[in-house]
Amino acid sequence: MVDFIPQPVVKRLPMYYRYLKKLESEGRMFVSSAALAEMAGLTASQVRQDMNILGGEGCQGRGYPVGDTCRHIAELMGITRRKTMMIVGMGNLGSALVHYSSFDEKSFETVAVFDSDPCKIGTKVGSQIVRSADGIESFLKAQKADIAVLTLPAASAQAMAEKLYGLGVRGFWNFAPVDLHLPGEAAVVNVHLDESLQLLSYRMAHPDMWGAAEKEE
Amino acid sequence: MVDFIPQPVVKRLPMYYRYLKKLESEGRMFVSSAALAEMAGLTASQVRQDMNILGGEGCQGRGYPVGDTCRHIAELMGITRRKTMMIVGMGNLGSALVHYSSFDEKSFETVAVFDSDPCKIGTKVGSQIVRSADGIESFLKAQKADIAVLTLPAASAQAMAEKLYGLGVRGFWNFAPVDLHLPGEAAVVNVHLDESLQLLSYRMAHPDMWGAAEKEE
Repeated sequence: MVDFIPQPVVKRLPMYYRYLKKLESEGRMFVSSAALAEMAGLTASQVRQDMNILGGEGCQGRGYPVGDTCRHIAELMGITRRKTMMIVGMGNLGSALVHYSSFDEKSFETVAVFDSDPCKIGTKVGSQIVRSADGIESFLKAQKADIAVLTLPAASAQAMAEKLYGLGVRGFWNFAPVDLHLPGEAAVVNVHLDESLQLLSYRMAHPDMWGAAEKEE
Repeated sequence: MVDFIPQPVVKRLPMYYRYLKKLESEGRMFVSSAALAEMAGLTASQVRQDMNILGGEGCQGRGYPVGDTCRHIAELMGITRRKTMMIVGMGNLGSALVHYSSFDEKSFETVAVFDSDPCKIGTKVGSQIVRSADGIESFLKAQKADIAVLTLPAASAQAMAEKLYGLGVRGFWNFAPVDLHLPGEAAVVNVHLDESLQLLSYRMAHPDMWGAAEKEE
């Protein structure tokens, strides 16, 4: 069993998973560290080191078994167990996320969407009827949501996150442009679109300063 | 002038910028490293080290000048110069990005949006009329776009990126779940939503394994 995985390796897990899934769908049984490295833009020795940390064993002369490695990484990432999501904030971004089809539906299922705008409440977005944000407490007392997707204005995000945490939500996928302050038990991943665009601007302004460092993200 | 900024510091620039803008809008003239550290969830010594690398000078007993530091970071990030953006792929996500209001409009301006679906071409999304993807070449020969926002299917992303690069686009904000392979002159920032959600899943499964490391992103 794996004890500790350094953050840079953790951040490469989804990428390895994506390439391994692709190889699996193509019917490949084994993949060499060199082939995986080329797909991922890493060096073969970095791939071997990562796989070593993950506890994956290659077969001499054949490489890593695609299916087993893929499943092992899926288990490590905890995506073999289905998680329920609620989306709070049905603006353009929240609505787009309801429709977003590339989520692996076996892993992440949107079970409810909320807004506080009376004009939106009761309307249909994709397969979901928008519920009133006033009903969040009673919803979460009747049903569990593993993850809250926060696509609401910056000014309301912290208070909403605290409320949801108090009602048992432990995963926060935060699109609001604020840093959430929550107890250590909460897992937070931010998608700060503005900041991502500013980072792109920086890289365009300093093409010499980053180069291969992108891979370190 | 600043010669080299390490990647972890680069990645904190947008966050510093966000907090400094907020302080500026509140009329604050100076901010101490301790106050900035508390906002950002860092240590005061880390803030001082970052500011030192950025060439920012604090005033003894008063801290860093808010406005100057804010402008200095904006210049470093290259967001003082307006950039034009074209969005390729008018699905739910692409459409949401047209509307996305928290972009600083002085820095990033959407000038055209494209799709290849005949049912979408000619329709209005926000202030934009969806153009045919067939017209990208003639569009870019008449007008420059600094940044291409790629919100198109994974299978078409690489070919489209190469085409756009050939037509002079140098900034790529890539939402397609693929890693783009482009010449070194191209700046690419990925927003891989699936991977972000998988990372959240990992953190929920291993709450002990990450903790404060979030700040290192």
